[in-house]
Amino acid sequence: MKISILGTATTKFGELWNVSPRALAKEAMLNALNASDLKPSQIDALFVGNMLSEILGNQANLGSLLVEELGVQVPAFRIEGACASGGLALHNAINSLIANQYKTVLVLGIEKMTDHGQEEIATALMAAGSDEERLAGATFPGVYALMAQAYMQKYKVTEEDLAAVSVKNHYHGSFNPKAQFQSPITVSDVMKSSKIADPLKLLDCSPISDGAAAVIISSGDSGVRKIKKPVYIIASEVATDTLSLHDRKSFTSLSSVVQAADKAYKKAGLKPRDIDVAEIHDCFSISEAIATEDLGFSKIGEGAKDIKKGKRTLFKGDIICNPSGGLKACGHPVGATGIKQIVEIVEQLRGEAGRRQAEGAKIGLTHNVGGSGAVAVIHILQR
Amino acid sequence: MKISILGTATTKFGELWNVSPRALAKEAMLNALNASDLKPSQIDALFVGNMLSEILGNQANLGSLLVEELGVQVPAFRIEGACASGGLALHNAINSLIANQYKTVLVLGIEKMTDHGQEEIATALMAAGSDEERLAGATFPGVYALMAQAYMQKYKVTEEDLAAVSVKNHYHGSFNPKAQFQSPITVSDVMKSSKIADPLKLLDCSPISDGAAAVIISSGDSGVRKIKKPVYIIASEVATDTLSLHDRKSFTSLSSVVQAADKAYKKAGLKPRDIDVAEIHDCFSISEAIATEDLGFSKIGEGAKDIKKGKRTLFKGDIICNPSGGLKACGHPVGATGIKQIVEIVEQLRGEAGRRQAEGAKIGLTHNVGGSGAVAVIHILQR
Repeated sequence: MKISILGTATTKFGELWNVSPRALAKEAMLNALNASDLKPSQIDALFVGNMLSEILGNQANLGSLLVEELGVQVPAFRIEGACASGGLALHNAINSLIANQYKTVLVLGIEKMTDHGQEEIATALMAAGSDEERLAGATFPGVYALMAQAYMQKYKVTEEDLAAVSVKNHYHGSFNPKAQFQSPITVSDVMKSSKIADPLKLLDCSPISDGAAAVIISSGDSGVRKIKKPVYIIASEVATDTLSLHDRKSFTSLSSVVQAADKAYKKAGLKPRDIDVAEIHDCFSISEAIATEDLGFSKIGEGAKDIKKGKRTLFKGDIICNPSGGLKACGHPVGATGIKQIVEIVEQLRGEAGRRQAEGAKIGLTHNVGGSGAVAVIHILQR
Repeated sequence: MKISILGTATTKFGELWNVSPRALAKEAMLNALNASDLKPSQIDALFVGNMLSEILGNQANLGSLLVEELGVQVPAFRIEGACASGGLALHNAINSLIANQYKTVLVLGIEKMTDHGQEEIATALMAAGSDEERLAGATFPGVYALMAQAYMQKYKVTEEDLAAVSVKNHYHGSFNPKAQFQSPITVSDVMKSSKIADPLKLLDCSPISDGAAAVIISSGDSGVRKIKKPVYIIASEVATDTLSLHDRKSFTSLSSVVQAADKAYKKAGLKPRDIDVAEIHDCFSISEAIATEDLGFSKIGEGAKDIKKGKRTLFKGDIICNPSGGLKACGHPVGATGIKQIVEIVEQLRGEAGRRQAEGAKIGLTHNVGGSGAVAVIHILQR
């Protein structure tokens, strides 16, 4: 069965102190409905990707709360899998369409993080980590720094090489009016920024963000309206790994990503080189370097170097990565990220990405990761 | 497509202070695998129903954590919808089988609540309530007490009538070795117990509990083993309502339950009178009285009276409700409840319920509710 994407929407990403979580969610949901020429009463269910509403907002039953916000009474679900919550929500939504349980569903990713202190957020985010890592005082930058150390040593990669990831993504973000950061940065800016967890510096790290993104998906072409520029989801695959880094065979590859990507390529009948444009889960610069290898875009050990050479950059690269600016520049409201990636790829495949359009893009991929790779979700989209 | 149930398991429900949440989950998962003659490597995915692991345990990414506990790397999801989390997890698991995304999946419900103070738990549980109700200081007993007041006034029902629900469920629990409370109680015991929220007394309320329950479901008869006593899930339906009581048309009926039940009966091609045995979400005595009306077992206004007459009681009733002892006597570890209900119905339909066997039961129903009725999940099972 073909899964069609109807309307999509994202809010501005950033520090949105004047907006409540439910207003943010409502904005994304209503805009996606408007873009689909649909009324709230025309959706059959709502799937919500969210990580922290319980810890930061003491709010469980988020699905029911948000359909109430739409003024309708349809089945609603909140799916949680740390920073992969958005992608996992979409995966379950797709299954519900193929199962013919629902015909047209709204999938929302939402997170409101900046109203809380940095320490509260850092602790909350470690809810996705292992007990051992938490007890050892590890933070997410700390865990990814270990991967960066291993990667740099193994493949003779420098801090400047990794910095190229952030430079590229800020460059892309400068074309994205929804991005949290819209200013280009240089390698020197990254190198001079304060150390967070050696070798990762402030500008190697994605920010704490608020934001919401929504997509409406429908089963088949026979959807509720004639879609002018159809985009289809042709693969949705998930895989997991251990929570703790110390239980893994490799520090320089995420087996969850390799497995989920393998399954997705098989399902879609495609090879990595068939991908034109991808949204990558660059929670840290090292994450994107490793991801481009795990996804088969670059040879092992050459991910960072290829990014530095411009192979993933808009207007000159072969497989464009993170045209939205990625988590680094567009922002990382954790539960929203997996859905924002879909929204970006849909805009790219419809040729509606404005100044950041990857020319002629036909096939796109999203790579959404939870924890330090404990779960990965890959979607492949085609126009 | 037929959804077959393979092995099932529940842990003991109660105050399990000597067991960690992950040990509790692992016990249920491994026992369900053993009961299915399956190894962990033979399941394709894990769906976890859990409400409070983030608030009480600062643990997000529970799906990945629990597959790691099984020593396998398969897709894993946590589904949250307050006290209906278990039922909602099963609903999404079923969709994934019908969608042919997975063939055999493990569905776990888990909650560990008693390691925390009563006030902490009462606050945490209100995470399922509306902002207005929370700001007004309402607790769940308070919200259900409002329904009870309306119901008693409208249908000339007494506190003694409502007490019959708890008396029945404790009677049933006395036959259940897994139940938190295994002692029968009398109407006088209920009447003499301390007031919690007028007219609800301590023995009108389900307890705070620890527990886990697991079921393995598979698509079709062609499952991984020949099932000796096949039981099938023939309907899985969800509906929602407003979070707040004050936004609803009626205080004496839950529209989420009415809608979900209507859809489930239609899907199964059955009428309420076809149900032999049901597990009801009796978080409070009033809940079961109203539920038996919303499910069509009793006429409107006669739910409590029918229970008092013995029409829902083991060994003499027509539609047996809560043979497990229900939430009241068996216990209510919130995320586990929806799955424990399935385990109980499967045992009843397989004729393996021991001293609490509802004779000749062929068709069973589960009724799992989140919040004060903001979400409801109905499953119908057939042998």
